[in-house]
Amino acid sequence: MAQRGYRTGILDLTQGEMGTRGSVEERAREAAEAEKMLCVSWRQALDIPDGRVENTWENRLKVARVMRQRRPRVVILPYWKGRHPDHYTASVLGYEACYLAGLAKLDIDGNVARAPSPADLAGAASEPLRAGRSQDSRRDAGATRPAPHRPFKIIYATLYYDVRPTFVVDITEQFETRFQALMAYKSQFSDQEAGKGIFPAQAEIRSRVEALARFYGTLGGVTYAEPFLQKEVGLVEDLTLLPVKSI
Amino acid sequence: MAQRGYRTGILDLTQGEMGTRGSVEERAREAAEAEKMLCVSWRQALDIPDGRVENTWENRLKVARVMRQRRPRVVILPYWKGRHPDHYTASVLGYEACYLAGLAKLDIDGNVARAPSPADLAGAASEPLRAGRSQDSRRDAGATRPAPHRPFKIIYATLYYDVRPTFVVDITEQFETRFQALMAYKSQFSDQEAGKGIFPAQAEIRSRVEALARFYGTLGGVTYAEPFLQKEVGLVEDLTLLPVKSI
Amino acid sequence: MAQRGYRTGILDLTQGEMGTRGSVEERAREAAEAEKMLCVSWRQALDIPDGRVENTWENRLKVARVMRQRRPRVVILPYWKGRHPDHYTASVLGYEACYLAGLAKLDIDGNVARAPSPADLAGAASEPLRAGRSQDSRRDAGATRPAPHRPFKIIYATLYYDVRPTFVVDITEQFETRFQALMAYKSQFSDQEAGKGIFPAQAEIRSRVEALARFYGTLGGVTYAEPFLQKEVGLVEDLTLLPVKSI
Amino acid sequence: MAQRGYRTGILDLTQGEMGTRGSVEERAREAAEAEKMLCVSWRQALDIPDGRVENTWENRLKVARVMRQRRPRVVILPYWKGRHPDHYTASVLGYEACYLAGLAKLDIDGNVARAPSPADLAGAASEPLRAGRSQDSRRDAGATRPAPHRPFKIIYATLYYDVRPTFVVDITEQFETRFQALMAYKSQFSDQEAGKGIFPAQAEIRSRVEALARFYGTLGGVTYAEPFLQKEVGLVEDLTLLPVKSI
Amino acid sequence: MAQRGYRTGILDLTQGEMGTRGSVEERAREAAEAEKMLCVSWRQALDIPDGRVENTWENRLKVARVMRQRRPRVVILPYWKGRHPDHYTASVLGYEACYLAGLAKLDIDGNVARAPSPADLAGAASEPLRAGRSQDSRRDAGATRPAPHRPFKIIYATLYYDVRPTFVVDITEQFETRFQALMAYKSQFSDQEAGKGIFPAQAEIRSRVEALARFYGTLGGVTYAEPFLQKEVGLVEDLTLLPVKSI
Amino acid sequence: MAQRGYRTGILDLTQGEMGTRGSVEERAREAAEAEKMLCVSWRQALDIPDGRVENTWENRLKVARVMRQRRPRVVILPYWKGRHPDHYTASVLGYEACYLAGLAKLDIDGNVARAPSPADLAGAASEPLRAGRSQDSRRDAGATRPAPHRPFKIIYATLYYDVRPTFVVDITEQFETRFQALMAYKSQFSDQEAGKGIFPAQAEIRSRVEALARFYGTLGGVTYAEPFLQKEVGLVEDLTLLPVKSI
Repeated sequence: MAQRGYRTGILDLTQGEMGTRGSVEERAREAAEAEKMLCVSWRQALDIPDGRVENTWENRLKVARVMRQRRPRVVILPYWKGRHPDHYTASVLGYEACYLAGLAKLDIDGNVARAPSPADLAGAASEPLRAGRSQDSRRDAGATRPAPHRPFKIIYATLYYDVRPTFVVDITEQFETRFQALMAYKSQFSDQEAGKGIFPAQAEIRSRVEALARFYGTLGGVTYAEPFLQKEVGLVEDLTLLPVKSI
Repeated sequence: MAQRGYRTGILDLTQGEMGTRGSVEERAREAAEAEKMLCVSWRQALDIPDGRVENTWENRLKVARVMRQRRPRVVILPYWKGRHPDHYTASVLGYEACYLAGLAKLDIDGNVARAPSPADLAGAASEPLRAGRSQDSRRDAGATRPAPHRPFKIIYATLYYDVRPTFVVDITEQFETRFQALMAYKSQFSDQEAGKGIFPAQAEIRSRVEALARFYGTLGGVTYAEPFLQKEVGLVEDLTLLPVKSI
Repeated sequence: MAQRGYRTGILDLTQGEMGTRGSVEERAREAAEAEKMLCVSWRQALDIPDGRVENTWENRLKVARVMRQRRPRVVILPYWKGRHPDHYTASVLGYEACYLAGLAKLDIDGNVARAPSPADLAGAASEPLRAGRSQDSRRDAGATRPAPHRPFKIIYATLYYDVRPTFVVDITEQFETRFQALMAYKSQFSDQEAGKGIFPAQAEIRSRVEALARFYGTLGGVTYAEPFLQKEVGLVEDLTLLPVKSI
Repeated sequence: MAQRGYRTGILDLTQGEMGTRGSVEERAREAAEAEKMLCVSWRQALDIPDGRVENTWENRLKVARVMRQRRPRVVILPYWKGRHPDHYTASVLGYEACYLAGLAKLDIDGNVARAPSPADLAGAASEPLRAGRSQDSRRDAGATRPAPHRPFKIIYATLYYDVRPTFVVDITEQFETRFQALMAYKSQFSDQEAGKGIFPAQAEIRSRVEALARFYGTLGGVTYAEPFLQKEVGLVEDLTLLPVKSI
Repeated sequence: MAQRGYRTGILDLTQGEMGTRGSVEERAREAAEAEKMLCVSWRQALDIPDGRVENTWENRLKVARVMRQRRPRVVILPYWKGRHPDHYTASVLGYEACYLAGLAKLDIDGNVARAPSPADLAGAASEPLRAGRSQDSRRDAGATRPAPHRPFKIIYATLYYDVRPTFVVDITEQFETRFQALMAYKSQFSDQEAGKGIFPAQAEIRSRVEALARFYGTLGGVTYAEPFLQKEVGLVEDLTLLPVKSI
Repeated sequence: MAQRGYRTGILDLTQGEMGTRGSVEERAREAAEAEKMLCVSWRQALDIPDGRVENTWENRLKVARVMRQRRPRVVILPYWKGRHPDHYTASVLGYEACYLAGLAKLDIDGNVARAPSPADLAGAASEPLRAGRSQDSRRDAGATRPAPHRPFKIIYATLYYDVRPTFVVDITEQFETRFQALMAYKSQFSDQEAGKGIFPAQAEIRSRVEALARFYGTLGGVTYAEPFLQKEVGLVEDLTLLPVKSI
């Protein structure tokens, strides 16, 4: 999406402090490096405790505030089932925050404590909510409060989940960069003592990542792809442009 | 699709001779009238017995032959479940015929009796398999046999079935004409004695047809729509172009 | 149900203060007007914040208290999935409140602050939980606490949700009044500036409401119907009385 | 249903000649005995080969003919999935025969050989299609052909299949007789050498039959019940009469 | 599992104080008796309020603490849907506690108040989370804190829920003892005035328990069985050892 | 399975004569080569026409005859949905043949023409039904007819289908040989002119095959795996031996 000229961004809900491997500082540095590779326009981390992402009013307001500031047209959330409680909770939390962000009568700033300062946020990384281009530019320049905003489209990333996607996106051109961005998280993916029983050896990772991308690529008739789910039915204009061979 | 400039066609599997209402001649006349309204490039009826559409080798060859002649890129089949056995059988029969039509080594003409002459086919109508534009033009000019052909895409029309569609197609602009084309089947839809207990009164039909189209329109965020199902996962290029509001 | 002589009621969880359109006072007035049209025996609004319906212990007790006072045999909840977080949360909250209301050892009044006074409650409206006739009349006359009570049946209204209902209820006779009751919410449904991009034009509403009711009517073989879901399997006494034609 | 005063009947598609145990004569005798216990108004066996029930035109006509003669309002078919091919094929065959039986223009008698004589049919038994009371009495008295007829309702018996039923029917009062009717099939259920590895010992059968009936009884809040599936959504008139406790 | 020589245990989340029948003391006594019959190595009750099992951080820590102390390889949770809110909430709470228990950086003891003393815990009973043998023995001997621990396998008991199990476990040998252990809860299962409308008569219970066990036994080709669900796909080594006949 | 010492075999339903690439002779030669690599005890091809596998009585008898001769305990069929009609039809055909093979009263040889001679069968290959070790050895030595036989277990290979498997089988050790056996079908997998638009370039195949095997390996916690589906619920003896980590 960035290559197509859209503004993209990543919202990390936590700072990853509970990870078996890596310190907050390390992960922030790694996230910043990945951010550059992925050409995202912005990346920001909230201060929700890692391992304790809860769908509370306060957390919903924190995320809704970012929605109003960043004004994405498309929001990508994690799928609503999964292995890691933070991930599936982030899915519901993210959805409900999008809802709140659009309530014209909701005064978010009167309700939450000061948002984290830019310094706090620089590059921290985990449980990302990825956001597409801004829909409009009514956002405040400094003093004024951002207007209500609701994304047009919310989709769910199902890459690590055992569910049939609604559609896949061709990432053949981006696969290599995407893999390097993943490898930027050295604390997570380099061979080391901590978590040896839980984490795959580095040599394994490349083949796994490739296998997953190829598997979803096969479903869409391309080489590498990433899977997504949407709740709405589709709307098709021209049947002859429908991709993916049936027979 | 016709309005977009594509060649479209309708293949009727039977001639409707078992219908409680209407003779074969009446139905053929009505189908011809509907054909004109729908601006299809061709309409053709096979001689499979009405009420006895079976997925036999002979029937598959009959349909496969038309596939090779017409060379559609997109084929619309009825959904594979339903109330009328002819309809759901037509779904499997149509699918398998598409498969056969692509087998390079299958000599269809050596296997079936003479195909129906153009005169026989003019406008007969029932259990239609609708087909999109031709994919290429390798088809024979008279003497030579049409080359193998397999449609790129097969989708399923679910309008009268109780199933969630994969996508809907906006027919707001076409709704009125489509309704008139339906009404062209006077033997089926005008008030009369035969089948009074089975057929809705004419006054009812307009509201039902409209309600169904509006219902599916609502799912897709448009006024009137028609629902379809595809077996494949989708392939999306630009997330910001995804239609249908999520929230 | 009111026309059949049952006592019916509506429990609004919130007072609708977060709605883009309409003030709390307006909505209360509108709800009172709709209440009259629908011939409900009672309508009551809790003070749960609009846009922030949460399944907390306090909220469960608030609803459970009403269950003990009103003693419904049937409770209609919103479906447990949906677009609006308040709606799907109300579904779980309502279910769990029904459970609590039946716990003989639970002293609800010792647990919550004073219930809202009748004056506070008059006619406020939003996120309604509709309740059927009272099952018995053991409820207190003034001083004494209402006895534990659990509804016999809990069903889910799925009208605006994309799910196959278990059954529909014929509302052909009630359709017109029901539509007028909807229109009583002038702040929501009259054409106006606020929320113009979100709300359909008034001219649209009638056709949409009608289309939905007709769609579900078609499923049940009647003109207009409303869809519901129940979790339990059914229990049928006489197979010849089963409605809805199969073929 | 017989106890409620309805005419009931059983249509056996085959004569059970392929059963590991029992001869055709034995099974016919046993079926006649069971018939008496179940108080059915009629029982009839077709001559479709056992182990080879196929959904052919001829077989559909054979069953459709009986539909026109017996004119049931409700038809109970086996569930459309299962272990025994004859059973699941009977499900589709039965459904399509019901469809054919209603086609006004279909002259069944011109299409099939002489129907089996009453003598042939007396009591033969296997793969039964059970049919409810006749819907009307337009059927022929001897010479004239029975008029077209389509049952109003088709439901599916799921007792031995691993699927959630739509509803159960209370058989607490009938359980004992029903069990005795099952035991009437001595060739199948008495301890013997043939098929020892396949058939449960007689001592086992009572507990199994009881466990299944109780299991489905539990779902419906009664002691013993039998499970059924219907494809249509339900239609409910009075919500307070909905059986089966929710909570 | 105990008979096979494994250490087994039961974790009761609450002390059952909200039950319509029985006091906390009675239920604790009954649980202790059942514990002996079931030969479990340990049984422990937390102090989460009965009727108010909530998936809070505090409750997750309470359960996670037990996971670290007991170190089970297999954890059996209630199914995640059901009639009783405490049961389905226990399912999510238990899962997330297992997750937390494995976080190397989580200092549970710094986060919760003192755990309940052994005296408090003796035999209390309700909403049990059953746990299999300990996976290893790194647990503390007195003073030191138990190391992080995550169970290898989490499965879900679906006995009272309307869902198809992934697998069943043969309990034919254990059925009688298991039933006696159930009967040990005299306050719940003996005939009495309290809750007469809600609880089945004692005479009923035996047949119901047996019917359920037999029903699931039938699915697995054994006499009595208990059903379980797992989220993961299976992994099979030798196809000839696959149990349960297909045909 | 062969490496574990079991007798394994492959039954090809057709001789692949309709394949866009390769002649019958080539494919027979290739199948023989693959057979050797896979160490199967036997491989046999029926004479069912390629592209026209139909579930007829004659075809069922042909397969049932092989079941009686080979007497497998486990039969692997293709999944019952799919892209190629021959594949999904083979699934039903194979299942029903297994059923027939067990009917004690069915005299297969009186019903079919002479079975294909060993010479005809040598090594032909396509639409394989793979069969596990023989269950017993009652089969005839030459003159006598093989006794009835029904496999204990029927499972479905879902490798190329879009469905969640019940379980996977670790093929890490066998992956390389399996790939070589696939490559033995040179007519299908070497780069060539015929079918260039339909077949992937040879360079692609290795990565695809590997990606699929790795994807299913990931689900089962191993490197390479193959997916299968079974209709029955499982039966587990020892919960601590359940493979595949849950969390």
